[in-house]
Amino acid sequence: MREIVELCTAVRETLVDITAQVADIVVRSGIRDGLVNIYAQGATAAIMIQENWDESVQTDVINLLRKHIPKGVWLHDAQDGNGDAHLKTGLVGPSETIPLINGKLGLSTWQNVFFCEFDGPRNDRKVVVTVVQAPPGPNAAYLSQNRDK
Amino acid sequence: MREIVELCTAVRETLVDITAQVADIVVRSGIRDGLVNIYAQGATAAIMIQENWDESVQTDVINLLRKHIPKGVWLHDAQDGNGDAHLKTGLVGPSETIPLINGKLGLSTWQNVFFCEFDGPRNDRKVVVTVVQAPPGPNAAYLSQNRDK
Amino acid sequence: MREIVELCTAVRETLVDITAQVADIVVRSGIRDGLVNIYAQGATAAIMIQENWDESVQTDVINLLRKHIPKGVWLHDAQDGNGDAHLKTGLVGPSETIPLINGKLGLSTWQNVFFCEFDGPRNDRKVVVTVVQAPPGPNAAYLSQNRDK
Repeated sequence: MREIVELCTAVRETLVDITAQVADIVVRSGIRDGLVNIYAQGATAAIMIQENWDESVQTDVINLLRKHIPKGVWLHDAQDGNGDAHLKTGLVGPSETIPLINGKLGLSTWQNVFFCEFDGPRNDRKVVVTVVQAPPGPNAAYLSQNRDK
Repeated sequence: MREIVELCTAVRETLVDITAQVADIVVRSGIRDGLVNIYAQGATAAIMIQENWDESVQTDVINLLRKHIPKGVWLHDAQDGNGDAHLKTGLVGPSETIPLINGKLGLSTWQNVFFCEFDGPRNDRKVVVTVVQAPPGPNAAYLSQNRDK
Repeated sequence: MREIVELCTAVRETLVDITAQVADIVVRSGIRDGLVNIYAQGATAAIMIQENWDESVQTDVINLLRKHIPKGVWLHDAQDGNGDAHLKTGLVGPSETIPLINGKLGLSTWQNVFFCEFDGPRNDRKVVVTVVQAPPGPNAAYLSQNRDK
C-alpha cells in the first residue's frame, strides 16, 4: 500500500513536520503490523526523525549542516550552485523506515518525521509512503499481549 | 513479527552491541528470507552498523561526533540541555534495515548492530525489531543455490 | 526475492553507480509494488543515494568526508589503519530502502544508487538487494490511478 505526500517549501532550507500526513496514510492502509517507509524523491531533500517541541532543534540541524557543509565551495557548484544541498542530502539520507505497531506508527513521544528541504523554495516536492505487512510469526499470542507496552 | 529489546545505559554516551539479541529474535520469528528492521525509540538514541573487534571504533565514533557536534552551544539547550544528543541522533538515524538470508541476519563478518546512546544514563531504552518476509520471486531455484555464497 | 551484486573497486575511495544492476534485479523479481532494500556487506563500505550528472558530486562527497574524518588519527588505526573508513561508513550507513512503484525503482530523475568504497581497492565487495511486496491496501483503485504521477 502506497501514497504520495506532496508539499511546497517557501525557503532554501527548512524542516517540515509531516508526521500527521504519514499517520493518516497508515490509518488508511488498514494494515496493523509491519513497516512504514518514508522516501523523499529529489536529490536535494531528505527525511530525518527528530524532536518537535518547538523550532529549536530544526534550526540547530540547519545551522550544524551549514557550518560543516558551507555553500559555494564544491565542484558540483559549477553545474547547479547547489553542491552543499546534495552533500547534506547524501549524509542525512532520503528515507526512514519505521515499525508499524498495532495500527500506529512506532514513534516514541518525542520522535517526529521531518521532510528536510535543502534547496528550496520548491512547489513540487514528493514523499512516497509505503506500508508493508509483517507476518505474525510463531509467537503472535505473546506479541499481542506485549505490543503496546 | 515483532519484538522489543529493552536496555539500560550507564553513561551519557556509549555504543551497546545488540547483535545477539536481534539474532535471537530472527531465529524466534521462524522467517527465512526478508528484511529485519531495527528501530530505536527515543529522540536521543540511534542505531549504527559498525565493527566490534574491540572498543576502539566505538570510542572513535563518540569522539568524532563530540568534536563536530559539541555540547552546550545549541538553541535546543535552552529546553533540555541535550541539543548535541538530538543532532547526533538525527545524523546517525534511529534505524537500520538488514537482509534476512536463509534464516540469518545478512551481516558480514565485521558488521555488528549497535545501539547508540547519546543522552544517558537511561533505564528504559526500547529498540523495536520487526521481521518482514520476502516472496521467493520467479528465480527462487537460482537464489537457493547462491544464497549462502 | 533477493540477489547479490558483486563488484570490485580499484582505488581506496570511490563512489560506484549500481543503479542499473539494482533496476535489473527489480525487473527479474516480477514484483510490482513494495520496497527494495540495498545493503552493503563489509564494515568499510556504504550505500548513498546521490545525483550522477557527472563526477562532481561523487568527488565532493569523498572530499567532504576526508576533511571532517581525516586518516591516521583514530584509536582503531592501531588495529587496521582504517579507522577513518569505519567512521565514514558508520555515518553514511550500509543501506538504503527505496519504494518499488509499478514495477520500477521509485527514484526521481536525479537520484542514483551509489556503492561507497572507503577502504579499497577490494575485489570481493557484495551488495545484497532484497525486494519485498506491499499489500495493495483498501484504496488500491485510487493508487492505481495515481501511482505514476
